[in-house]
Amino acid sequence: MATVNTKTGQSIDRTVLDSMLRRRMFYTPSFEIYGGVSGLYDYGPPGTALIANMTDLWRKHFVLEEDMLEVDTTMLTPHEILKTSGHVDKFADWMCKDPKTGEIFRADHLVEEVLEARLKGDKQARGEKVVVDEEKEAKKKRKAKGTEAKKLDDAVVKEYEETLAQIDNFGGPELEQLIKKHDIRNPVTGGEVLPPVSFNLMFQTSIGPSANMPGYLRPETAQGQFLNFAKLLEFNQQSMPFASASIGKSFRNEISPRAGLLRVREFLMAEIEHYVDPEGGKKHARFDEVKDTELTLLDRNVQLSGSTKLTKMTIGKAVEIGLVDNETLGYFLARIQSFLLKLGVDPTKLRFRQHMANEMAHYATDCWDAELQTSYGWIECVGCADRSAYDLTVHKEKTGAPLVVRQARAEPLRIEEYQIELEKKKFGPKFKKDAKTVEAAVEALSQELREKLSLDLEKDGKIEVDVEGVGSGKVEIEKDLIKIEKRTRVENVREYTPNVIEPSFGIGRILYSMIEHSYWSRAGDETRGVLSFPPAVAPTKVLLVPLSTHASFKPLTQRLTSKLRKAGISNRVDDSSASIGKRYSRNDELGTPFGITVDFQSVQDSTFTLRDRDTTKQVRASEDEILQAVKSLVEGDETWEDIRKRLPEFTSQEIEA
Amino acid sequence: MATVNTKTGQSIDRTVLDSMLRRRMFYTPSFEIYGGVSGLYDYGPPGTALIANMTDLWRKHFVLEEDMLEVDTTMLTPHEILKTSGHVDKFADWMCKDPKTGEIFRADHLVEEVLEARLKGDKQARGEKVVVDEEKEAKKKRKAKGTEAKKLDDAVVKEYEETLAQIDNFGGPELEQLIKKHDIRNPVTGGEVLPPVSFNLMFQTSIGPSANMPGYLRPETAQGQFLNFAKLLEFNQQSMPFASASIGKSFRNEISPRAGLLRVREFLMAEIEHYVDPEGGKKHARFDEVKDTELTLLDRNVQLSGSTKLTKMTIGKAVEIGLVDNETLGYFLARIQSFLLKLGVDPTKLRFRQHMANEMAHYATDCWDAELQTSYGWIECVGCADRSAYDLTVHKEKTGAPLVVRQARAEPLRIEEYQIELEKKKFGPKFKKDAKTVEAAVEALSQELREKLSLDLEKDGKIEVDVEGVGSGKVEIEKDLIKIEKRTRVENVREYTPNVIEPSFGIGRILYSMIEHSYWSRAGDETRGVLSFPPAVAPTKVLLVPLSTHASFKPLTQRLTSKLRKAGISNRVDDSSASIGKRYSRNDELGTPFGITVDFQSVQDSTFTLRDRDTTKQVRASEDEILQAVKSLVEGDETWEDIRKRLPEFTSQEIEA
Repeated sequence: MATVNTKTGQSIDRTVLDSMLRRRMFYTPSFEIYGGVSGLYDYGPPGTALIANMTDLWRKHFVLEEDMLEVDTTMLTPHEILKTSGHVDKFADWMCKDPKTGEIFRADHLVEEVLEARLKGDKQARGEKVVVDEEKEAKKKRKAKGTEAKKLDDAVVKEYEETLAQIDNFGGPELEQLIKKHDIRNPVTGGEVLPPVSFNLMFQTSIGPSANMPGYLRPETAQGQFLNFAKLLEFNQQSMPFASASIGKSFRNEISPRAGLLRVREFLMAEIEHYVDPEGGKKHARFDEVKDTELTLLDRNVQLSGSTKLTKMTIGKAVEIGLVDNETLGYFLARIQSFLLKLGVDPTKLRFRQHMANEMAHYATDCWDAELQTSYGWIECVGCADRSAYDLTVHKEKTGAPLVVRQARAEPLRIEEYQIELEKKKFGPKFKKDAKTVEAAVEALSQELREKLSLDLEKDGKIEVDVEGVGSGKVEIEKDLIKIEKRTRVENVREYTPNVIEPSFGIGRILYSMIEHSYWSRAGDETRGVLSFPPAVAPTKVLLVPLSTHASFKPLTQRLTSKLRKAGISNRVDDSSASIGKRYSRNDELGTPFGITVDFQSVQDSTFTLRDRDTTKQVRASEDEILQAVKSLVEGDETWEDIRKRLPEFTSQEIEA
Repeated sequence: MATVNTKTGQSIDRTVLDSMLRRRMFYTPSFEIYGGVSGLYDYGPPGTALIANMTDLWRKHFVLEEDMLEVDTTMLTPHEILKTSGHVDKFADWMCKDPKTGEIFRADHLVEEVLEARLKGDKQARGEKVVVDEEKEAKKKRKAKGTEAKKLDDAVVKEYEETLAQIDNFGGPELEQLIKKHDIRNPVTGGEVLPPVSFNLMFQTSIGPSANMPGYLRPETAQGQFLNFAKLLEFNQQSMPFASASIGKSFRNEISPRAGLLRVREFLMAEIEHYVDPEGGKKHARFDEVKDTELTLLDRNVQLSGSTKLTKMTIGKAVEIGLVDNETLGYFLARIQSFLLKLGVDPTKLRFRQHMANEMAHYATDCWDAELQTSYGWIECVGCADRSAYDLTVHKEKTGAPLVVRQARAEPLRIEEYQIELEKKKFGPKFKKDAKTVEAAVEALSQELREKLSLDLEKDGKIEVDVEGVGSGKVEIEKDLIKIEKRTRVENVREYTPNVIEPSFGIGRILYSMIEHSYWSRAGDETRGVLSFPPAVAPTKVLLVPLSTHASFKPLTQRLTSKLRKAGISNRVDDSSASIGKRYSRNDELGTPFGITVDFQSVQDSTFTLRDRDTTKQVRASEDEILQAVKSLVEGDETWEDIRKRLPEFTSQEIEA
């Protein structure tokens, strides 16, 4: 486990945190009573509420703010679409099988695990301090060969370290070489593994009652958006640029998932496909609004030099010097950052890392990831890729659908070109059944060939054209059948395939990282955990706590809960017989930011105390004042400091029992 | 197409409505540029916004109102769970194959189609008026054998009609008999079809890289909720009754789906599992709040008598006379109705129909459907089933997990019973490796057997017990190894498996029906469609329309849009060059309830006109007054009539061009 500290400076003990999150049912392994399935998790009530609040914020921050066209497309996707998009061929990981045990490893993870174990053994042999990765140790429950303290040559250490730094950059053949070269084996049994084979990560199924329509569960929401491009452009009244957006589950049949919510087989994504004219430098109309935003960057060249040195820079500067390719990409990087900060992400644990060339998805031309630092290391949480015109082009070519923008030109475009005219009536009698094939071949001729052939025609009175599948493959056409002339064509309409900038959010990964960033414990007491979610994100905003189970409190809590509900503020009553302190502790773990205590004085004068989770300080005021304060806090109009200044403080022994 | 009228008394032409919904991108066939896949639809921007607003209302109406525990569980589900739940064996339809053409029919639909065609032919031959089902005609594009006008015997007509009335009640063997008896064939080719075979409706897949974990896409969200029951009860601090809830996609691999959004292969469900003590008549603490709600009911007995006569009755009365089994079921029926009415469902097109015995899902003991009347007939939109203890029991038996409630008894329960004591130390030496098996067999003995054996033991000094797999299958135990005595056991804790009442909402079906109920056209002009969604449901609340593209309007629309957004009111600007009338017409079709026009007077004095979609009437007032009116309308605090009374009316030729 990487050593990461909470904002109060404690180091995070993930075992304690995980146990708290499961106890409070933020999430739980799916099908646990059946033994569970790795890589599948259910969200309990607080986790589900967090996700609802996160997606709600996402909708407001992106979709409503920029009039994006949100769509909801199916997860079931026929084979043909994902064949065209490249996923059938390229959405894969490399896996190795141990033929003796039948165990299957993800090849890059296997190499990583074994080399890291050897480096650790080397450090031990050299008497250096070893940071124990408890997570890996605990999960594997196996003694990897090579974890014994064994010194390595300095050159070997260097080679291992360089290999590890580039591990994301290797494909199957390179991994096979590494496995041979470093004699990498099954860490438990020491048995040899077979060479890596490619494993497609899509879940396959069959649509309909006959077996003739194979399909997959989508690996991303993007394809459904692209397929609707023409209709969305029409819906947007042909106006460019615009974006579509979608929130929905996607799937990835991980080979051997082992990192909690960070590597799962079914996950919620929120994706934006922003369509932009590739000409004119991909400017963005609102770039000025964000240009002074400072980001922490880790660019491609720094990484290739073997370093992870971070640079702070405004996004305006980064675009200006070409580090970030264009304004639209830059605009979204800044907007992604402001979204993450709204969720309560710690700005010191956020960086934007540029993908290296071999690491990028098959469709991307540039990609920056927003990474969040957690006890698992730096985690990719949002990808922001420039997919260029890749997807719209392949689908257009496959289906012939007009996935293009047609735009009236300000100035008509005049094009000098060789045009061909065929005497079609004579083609039939001459070429018979081949007539259409010959016509198509002629019309497909390039400008260069047309120029040459026009000279041939003038000189010889006939031309010879390559036509695959007809006669000898060469066809002679006489000048009474064809005319080739240089003419001027005037284009009043410009047709282009837009480029796509895609910010793509892994909601579960953001959720987990955000939880780590919000986590601390009171006075260093690990048993008193607190999740300091911002009020807008917190699963429940207000806890209502009657001092005891005394009957006189009930009408008051009912009145408060109904008023809060009417104001759209989620709240829960805890009228259990546990002590007030215990009830608040439970809600500290749930991240509930505010608490209202109902006591005997409340019954007499309708005043209540309001407690702040982070400081545990309280104020006391009238019902209306307290409700107004809560509303103002939840909607972000005031902070707790503001409230404390204007309402009288309250202290009481019994409350903080 | 069933003849159904809009609320303004026009008959609904589904072709016109469908074309409007597709033009405005409420929904669209998925993968249309690849030819589409039947039963799969994408939602465009207005459809997606409708769904978001519906689920938001659902959360407020059910989850927040009753502190339900919302969870989000995975769609991927291993085989074993759905085997236990009964879905692997029973979640199936019957299908028939035409061996010549390879075409596959859903057996009940085939019988229905052919018999209906013959009845139609009979009516034609008798010279009666035939209501043409355009939908079926258009979709099938085939001339069914038997649609020719051909008179049938009166007895045959009666038989066909009775068969059709009970079609949902037939299984495979009955359908096979009907097909033989009535010589039912492929309607297009007249070819014979093979006997019906069962087709499981779950999409199958494989989880992980090896092929040893088959799984399915869930057919309902319910199972994920049941599997978490013990944790949810713990989260709810052991307090009963309570409910879990979930909103998510489920899947059903329909054999041959043909009814638009009403029969799809991937669909959004919102399900509640309300856990209740089976003892004490399943009372509900808030039943009093709903008991005077009047519902339109169609009970089981009326249907079995071949009638569809509806009864109006308060839910209080229906529970009292036992028509609806218990208060909890009744409470939810009333709450379902109030939810549907909030969405804008027409109360005259809503009924609750009780399932007939053979029609119920394998897990249900009673079930009422909320059905909405549309041009497709009465459509099941919400099911409300009493699943009894079925699911929790089967999962508990399979896994041994304690899916039970343990409750301290007010009075300890005293039970007289025969108890067995074993001399375990002597068991080992005597039975060796079989000792544990023998022990288990003895401990599993029923009270009746124990009584008999205690007498044997007294009489013979030994007993004989059946132990499968040990020796001859019978084992002798002497009295020094065993004691059987009648004793009193005191139980302080009551342990029970809760029953489940399940309201289950098909969001897509509700959405489609609600659209039909909201649809009408202006002055009977079919080209001027209007969708009168309630403001809370409408995809966009306010349209901002500058009078022209004049530059002076831009700052005003920007100011309005930003103020509306801040108030959480979704709005769109249409500053296209189309006439104001055209822009409003477009938004009538999108169901946008209000419009604000920005004109030259607005530039001078910051007054604006506010237009009501349904009446097309307008008022004019200051910016603050208009914004306050919009907020009040959208939040349901005032109606348009209220606004009209207090703000000055505005009429202008140019606006309604």
